[in-house]
Amino acid sequence: MSNTTSYDLIIIGGACAGLAAGTYAARRAMKTLIISKDIGGQIATTPSVENYPGIDFITGPDLGQAMLAQALKWGCDMTYDEVVKVEKRGEHDFIVGGLGGSYSSKSLILAYGKTPKSLGIPGEKEYSGRGVSYCVTCDAPLFRNKVTAVVGGGSAAMEGALILAKVCSKVYLVHRRNEFRGEQVLLEQIDSTPNIEKVLAVTPDEVLGNGKLVSDLRVKSVADGTTRDLTVNGIFVEIGFSVNSALIKDLVTLDHLNQVVTNNKQETSTPGVFAAGDLTDTPYKQAIISAGEGTKAALTAYSYVFEKSAGVDWTDKH
Amino acid sequence: MSNTTSYDLIIIGGACAGLAAGTYAARRAMKTLIISKDIGGQIATTPSVENYPGIDFITGPDLGQAMLAQALKWGCDMTYDEVVKVEKRGEHDFIVGGLGGSYSSKSLILAYGKTPKSLGIPGEKEYSGRGVSYCVTCDAPLFRNKVTAVVGGGSAAMEGALILAKVCSKVYLVHRRNEFRGEQVLLEQIDSTPNIEKVLAVTPDEVLGNGKLVSDLRVKSVADGTTRDLTVNGIFVEIGFSVNSALIKDLVTLDHLNQVVTNNKQETSTPGVFAAGDLTDTPYKQAIISAGEGTKAALTAYSYVFEKSAGVDWTDKH
Repeated sequence: MSNTTSYDLIIIGGACAGLAAGTYAARRAMKTLIISKDIGGQIATTPSVENYPGIDFITGPDLGQAMLAQALKWGCDMTYDEVVKVEKRGEHDFIVGGLGGSYSSKSLILAYGKTPKSLGIPGEKEYSGRGVSYCVTCDAPLFRNKVTAVVGGGSAAMEGALILAKVCSKVYLVHRRNEFRGEQVLLEQIDSTPNIEKVLAVTPDEVLGNGKLVSDLRVKSVADGTTRDLTVNGIFVEIGFSVNSALIKDLVTLDHLNQVVTNNKQETSTPGVFAAGDLTDTPYKQAIISAGEGTKAALTAYSYVFEKSAGVDWTDKH
Repeated sequence: MSNTTSYDLIIIGGACAGLAAGTYAARRAMKTLIISKDIGGQIATTPSVENYPGIDFITGPDLGQAMLAQALKWGCDMTYDEVVKVEKRGEHDFIVGGLGGSYSSKSLILAYGKTPKSLGIPGEKEYSGRGVSYCVTCDAPLFRNKVTAVVGGGSAAMEGALILAKVCSKVYLVHRRNEFRGEQVLLEQIDSTPNIEKVLAVTPDEVLGNGKLVSDLRVKSVADGTTRDLTVNGIFVEIGFSVNSALIKDLVTLDHLNQVVTNNKQETSTPGVFAAGDLTDTPYKQAIISAGEGTKAALTAYSYVFEKSAGVDWTDKH
């Protein structure tokens, strides 16, 4: 690492949280750099976004590009790179090392999201966005009066099945064990919901389709290896997320799911480091929530860099 | 009040927070009613919105109408009414009384915002949105290399002047007293910022303009009543907000600024009552933040109504 370029703020991650932060920071005349491998993150994998308030319909990639264009328009810098090192150096200086270069900054926003775990079975990738989904809240309304399957055994899978049962004609809840590890209260509701059928002690084996849309989920018995095809229009994969915590585990406090602990100003445990979006411990993972959090993070970073004023009573500000 | 219509969720307020909540609640198949006097709230007073991530440019009224159309499309009900009474009745039932009728609901989202205090001087209303602004974060970028005045003596006014000083050629900070009640650290920065001029012990007297845009702020000496015209392109009014707390002071806990205290799921002190947007104690008042909070509030309300599951570990959900 020879020469480093110095910024007021470096944002790691180019999805909704990071790009919203970039717009707000640049509008506050902060010298700001976004570093990201890609644009849009999770939302870029979605062919249709109909729940971003203010926009009736947009594709995920288009929403990401619109947010990027806005951040750049206001003067934010952006570089495509993969961050491999984040370090605090001295009182008010952070070093961000990418594969392509090294950068220093007075403040950081961590906004590189997390990745839903996939099943890793044939057909899953091919039918992603064409029946295979990783977000019940996002996509449940697409399956009104249709048949869906939810794969998973935790609270997210159980709640997902209950949400879908209110709009779908039938929901299969597919789990590899004979019991669920989610909350008992959810299990009781599942057992009293007539259009949810539990399919237990099976593993997902293959996603079948007609070339355009999902038609079946093939599951295999854990006991004897026999298979069964569940005829479905949609498959929701709810088996958790993975977050790249190795990068930041020595920098900020993480919770038991390796999510970054934040307060309602998006501050982390380390002064000068802020976090927003899916990698934080905020409940719910939605584009609009990430954008709101990114905005908060940028405004707090501004205050940190230019006011160094931890005692400010934020409640009377806007 | 004779017959009442019953809902899963009533949202009081039809601005960014309430309309986003309406979209998300309706998408979860909740029977939802929005009650509001108007659409868009604060944002509807803004002729240009350029900081809503994902939308390069839109008028404030158009943004409000787009959000309303979206909520209605997904099945949310909306009625124009002024709420005059909100009461808890029994364990899981709230009564909302409007001038035009009475409604009952299993849950509530308070999202009716707050109103920036105005100066109440000639010309202020006429030039609102044409030089007179109530939001530094929103409108500072419009005044790059121009001259502005900030009116007020608290932290918001002082921080506003510092933000503007980074983009404006000159900033007057106008206060009726001889000293400021904001934080000392901000005052020190103001005193060391060469392009901020404090204009003290004067009251704003009149906003002058050319019929299209602001040209001057006339201020009057508290001591002797003499006037002085400050030639400016913009006037930022930062003298606080008023919130209609009488309606809810017996329902939920408020902070010292009469804002509703919320946690990061938008829960208030009363189970079944949630709050989002400018009337909460969340720092910063921005449309995108309100939309994110409204979304969280709707998802938490869903859980409250259909899961009654306070013990759910939200952190692994999305």
